[in-house]
Amino acid sequence: MFYIIGLGLSDEQDVTIRGLNAIKKSTRVYLEAYTSILMVEKDRLESFYGRELILADRDVVETQSDEILRDADKEDVSLLVVGDPFGATTHTDIILRARALKIPTRVIHNASIMNAVGASGLQLYNFGQTVSLVFFTETWKPDSFYDRIKENADLGLHTLVLLDIKVKEQSEENLARGRKIYEPPRYMSVPQAVSQLIEIESIRKTGTLNPDTTLAVALSRVGGGDENQRIVAGTLSELSQQQPEMYGEPLHSLVIVGKRLHHLEVEYAEDFAVDKENWRSIANKVYGCALD
Amino acid sequence: MFYIIGLGLSDEQDVTIRGLNAIKKSTRVYLEAYTSILMVEKDRLESFYGRELILADRDVVETQSDEILRDADKEDVSLLVVGDPFGATTHTDIILRARALKIPTRVIHNASIMNAVGASGLQLYNFGQTVSLVFFTETWKPDSFYDRIKENADLGLHTLVLLDIKVKEQSEENLARGRKIYEPPRYMSVPQAVSQLIEIESIRKTGTLNPDTTLAVALSRVGGGDENQRIVAGTLSELSQQQPEMYGEPLHSLVIVGKRLHHLEVEYAEDFAVDKENWRSIANKVYGCALD
Repeated sequence: MFYIIGLGLSDEQDVTIRGLNAIKKSTRVYLEAYTSILMVEKDRLESFYGRELILADRDVVETQSDEILRDADKEDVSLLVVGDPFGATTHTDIILRARALKIPTRVIHNASIMNAVGASGLQLYNFGQTVSLVFFTETWKPDSFYDRIKENADLGLHTLVLLDIKVKEQSEENLARGRKIYEPPRYMSVPQAVSQLIEIESIRKTGTLNPDTTLAVALSRVGGGDENQRIVAGTLSELSQQQPEMYGEPLHSLVIVGKRLHHLEVEYAEDFAVDKENWRSIANKVYGCALD
Repeated sequence: MFYIIGLGLSDEQDVTIRGLNAIKKSTRVYLEAYTSILMVEKDRLESFYGRELILADRDVVETQSDEILRDADKEDVSLLVVGDPFGATTHTDIILRARALKIPTRVIHNASIMNAVGASGLQLYNFGQTVSLVFFTETWKPDSFYDRIKENADLGLHTLVLLDIKVKEQSEENLARGRKIYEPPRYMSVPQAVSQLIEIESIRKTGTLNPDTTLAVALSRVGGGDENQRIVAGTLSELSQQQPEMYGEPLHSLVIVGKRLHHLEVEYAEDFAVDKENWRSIANKVYGCALD
């Protein structure tokens, strides 16, 4: 059996009993590489699971799936991924490959940011499509995310924005010289994300995003408890002015709040607000939310 | 500490290690009542967790939260819910109440249908807002879900439709006589859901839903393995013609497929299709999806 197992969002204790049992009976256990960057150290996972883990880069999972799937028709093999196997990063390719090889597959689900974003207090029913925001460069500023946010906003819906992470990047020099030396992983910070959003708004000028009157909620390590989880709410401008420490460890996500905002959502998220008074005031005056 | 713990979607083995540890150290453990109807028997959960469970109806959770929260500032109390605490049914009320009582609270996340729906092969990025479909009666046919599906469809997005469940209903006679005798729980079947969708389409006539050319995917017990999980794909008409057994145990969900359909989504979900040839043919000719 080929198991593809979601590890959840925070640390080694977020695996399910079903997932842990599958790991323990597998002859080989692969760990999708950036999982360890994002959550906890590989050796901490290994000691908790009682199993040696084989690191597999994202591109290994995509291009060398036959090695991962080897003998999985005769023994148990597991692939561990952060969040849920069908979360932000999907694993349909390797499952389709397993199917073609007639290898039985079982997916073990877990929380992902796509549902745990509810921890912000914003109702999942009020979310439209999710978008990804990639690092802009001087010459490449893909902005299709803006159209998606506008589509959601026009319907009054919230948008979950997933912030980019770069792993295994090579410097131009190392790339030119063919040296497989990689830069340290980079992840997009909340202030950087806000800056990119506002940059595109200033070009498009549809009024979808306004630094001072668009509310947003930033999240990281959801479910990790007070020592890890960070949820910060405020206007785009307020969020861009916070110190990086405020947002905790990567990965970060950002929710752009839609106009179909319910007073309970306002009240719940107020606890996370940079400036509670301003949060309520904008929810009331700009979003038209009736509050006590 | 007050813990609110998601149990995931299928059975007792879907709890996380973090969740199980919290259960084991709690002095009282409440089980949101319909959880046991939906997943497994209460005694099976009790024997697995090694703890006695106190059943709490949904309305008890909402109206008698102070009893559930009693002493949770001094000892550990857990409330177990199906899926994720912020899934389809939210638990913001009781968390707000805990906050007001200055009781520390921790949410332990898990998979919910809001993210596990990715098991259909449809990409979570391509979903718009989620809707609920309630049982129609002769005189009450709330149809706002139709506007939401149309909003999504107009953007080419998929819609997750959550099908109604009725628990603790009283017959008119028992209600009139004040007898607290409840009917067995009812849950909406996939054919019934399709029938309600088509009924509203026949009134609204916007062409959003077409029995023969709108594709959909039905799901139940996602993640429960081959013995429990059911995923069935087809046109609305095909889905309405299947035998009830085909859809497995409740709760059921249905995805209305949007036009922004990717060929990988078609290929993945084809495995679940009632009629694979028709599935591909409609994806190609009606949805405009280029297939091999």
